Amino acid sequence: MKKRNMVIAQSGGPSMVINQSLAGAVAEARKSDAIGKILGARHGIAGILGNDYADMRRISARKLEAIAATPSSALGSVRRKPSAEDCKAIFEEFRRLDVGWFFYIGGNDSADAARIVAEAAQAEGYPLCAYHIPKTIDNDLRSCDHTPGYGSAARFVAMAFMGDDLDNRALGGVKIDVVMGRDAGFLTAASALARTAPDSGPHLIYLPERPFSAERFAKDVESAVAKHGRCVVAVSEGIRCADGTPVAARFAGGEKDSHGNMQLSGTGALGDMLAKTVKEKTGIARVRADTFGYLQRSFPGVASETDSAEARAAGEAAVRFALAGLPGGTVGIERAKGKKYKVEFVRKDFSAAAKTARSMPAAFIAKNGHDVTPAFVEYAKPLVGALPQVELL
Amino acid sequence: MKKRNMVIAQSGGPSMVINQSLAGAVAEARKSDAIGKILGARHGIAGILGNDYADMRRISARKLEAIAATPSSALGSVRRKPSAEDCKAIFEEFRRLDVGWFFYIGGNDSADAARIVAEAAQAEGYPLCAYHIPKTIDNDLRSCDHTPGYGSAARFVAMAFMGDDLDNRALGGVKIDVVMGRDAGFLTAASALARTAPDSGPHLIYLPERPFSAERFAKDVESAVAKHGRCVVAVSEGIRCADGTPVAARFAGGEKDSHGNMQLSGTGALGDMLAKTVKEKTGIARVRADTFGYLQRSFPGVASETDSAEARAAGEAAVRFALAGLPGGTVGIERAKGKKYKVEFVRKDFSAAAKTARSMPAAFIAKNGHDVTPAFVEYAKPLVGALPQVELL
Repeated sequence: MKKRNMVIAQSGGPSMVINQSLAGAVAEARKSDAIGKILGARHGIAGILGNDYADMRRISARKLEAIAATPSSALGSVRRKPSAEDCKAIFEEFRRLDVGWFFYIGGNDSADAARIVAEAAQAEGYPLCAYHIPKTIDNDLRSCDHTPGYGSAARFVAMAFMGDDLDNRALGGVKIDVVMGRDAGFLTAASALARTAPDSGPHLIYLPERPFSAERFAKDVESAVAKHGRCVVAVSEGIRCADGTPVAARFAGGEKDSHGNMQLSGTGALGDMLAKTVKEKTGIARVRADTFGYLQRSFPGVASETDSAEARAAGEAAVRFALAGLPGGTVGIERAKGKKYKVEFVRKDFSAAAKTARSMPAAFIAKNGHDVTPAFVEYAKPLVGALPQVELL
Repeated sequence: MKKRNMVIAQSGGPSMVINQSLAGAVAEARKSDAIGKILGARHGIAGILGNDYADMRRISARKLEAIAATPSSALGSVRRKPSAEDCKAIFEEFRRLDVGWFFYIGGNDSADAARIVAEAAQAEGYPLCAYHIPKTIDNDLRSCDHTPGYGSAARFVAMAFMGDDLDNRALGGVKIDVVMGRDAGFLTAASALARTAPDSGPHLIYLPERPFSAERFAKDVESAVAKHGRCVVAVSEGIRCADGTPVAARFAGGEKDSHGNMQLSGTGALGDMLAKTVKEKTGIARVRADTFGYLQRSFPGVASETDSAEARAAGEAAVRFALAGLPGGTVGIERAKGKKYKVEFVRKDFSAAAKTARSMPAAFIAKNGHDVTPAFVEYAKPLVGALPQVELL
């Protein structure tokens, strides 16, 4: 087998464990005689187009481990859909460098970018094995029972709500926390794992999968305050009006990336608007809103052990599939049935992950539309791991 | 010595280690024959006025330790300045319960509340030994080299900026993070501990101690972007215009508590306004703002070990001072001179802590007005403890 070179890159929003996937793929590739150079393209396809690489063969094993344990995307990231022109330029670069292996770590948009590159290669008759390695804190890839990155972000969210519920117990009133998740409510739903006592918050959980009404929201808050004397609310940044318009869209800057996604994070506008709604409609005086923002995907020292190990394994699996001669595609994660938590990594076509994302299944959403079901909690618990103990007086 | 009963309570904003002070004081009191009942008043003086107590003698040692390790105020908190009428009602209650020992854990407003109660007792000829136990994440008590609660909140802020700087490296642009701190910049300044490399953020740090100008801010950001290709900014929620008006005051709801403090937290308005300023004045496209909010004072599992131990020791010291027959007052914390970090707990008059708070000394603020000095970093490092390791590629 003729040795050919490898390019690996990271794309889309960072996560706490995306570098585990990078390290897993690189460590696996370093063992193989079929792979020559291992080039880490900086900032995704922008690094390929700009000829900007880190030499991943030269990095010491110690340094590679330290990078694996570091949050965010060590190679840098990008949000860019490759155009036909980009694809042409990418092949010129791949030809020049004799790249035969291409690995792209990211979400559904990144899976689609990898697919576009792979299909263009096939059309040009250029021999290339391309793999997408799954990553998204949103947990919205159709190809995976759960996606690497989700467990750690969910762990941050659960811990944040544990602390915030204790804070709300101390001073009372209504506390609204806005959680990331453009179209899928999985991350917001993880707030339910924070509950340690029958009266623990979050007392209300709003997901993008159910239409949001400001009137009903204010009434739900009033009921919770009547019951508990206080109220902690988890709200997805992606909540939508009955007509499908994101509630935040009217308040955010209205920026869109090249995949057509609206900017929802990096602003407190939605939380502030919801706090104003509660104050105006209920007359409750102490209403506060926090927007967890980018800490959810980058806070050091909070990564879930299971998530870290699976992100690593997903990177290794992609390289193993490629070296085994399987056709390019994505790494799916399947959960074994049965009581004991166990997963399997399987090769799937790009189409299993690319483009359209998945939402929370109805079985995970409470009938009242503002909570999750026990089935969701069972689903999410092993991904997040044991949480810190808290004690009430 | 006739046995008399004890009341302890928590007041003001919660912290990650305020329960360590509670546990320290309670454990110390439980050893003494001079103290009878140990009553934890719920929600500060509101619990005394409302006759709502937890029996702190009955709690098992194991449960007390678990409470100590739990963030936020286990007894609940309150923001309430005792009026003359409140004081009268407090004595009726203290007389009824034969309370001879009163401990109030909180910041400068709580020190003032304890002083008011102590002075009113003296005026009434009621024998009462009252102690304030210091707590504030703002680190603004004049009576302490540093205040219990600060080290842990500073640790959260430093870790948040470590992660957020890695996130900003990945996707670029300008990231503004708003940090708690009404009048003192200590907590915002702790963001400087996040720097691990010469080009690490935060690249700009704005404190309430220096007048803020939107024009200069936009120029500072432009310079940082020119130098690093990106920019992470730490901003105190308490930044002020040249005339002393809080920049946030125009954007927040304008709520004030009974101590006259404006609501600055629990809203993303300041961050959003600063992001808008940068976009408009510089034309930089990707500008995001996060407001760390209440997570800074309640996130579980992030507490600094030094801070936890000192919060515990401050609670113990207050009870020791009281039992030793020293006149009521507050627990001061003094740092020993010399290379090795060491502190001493000393009794001080209420006036050392009450009412006016302190600001960052000029020696801790960089001449350019948008950074801290190495002296600040040396000051803060032992309070925060060793931070997670991160590795750059």
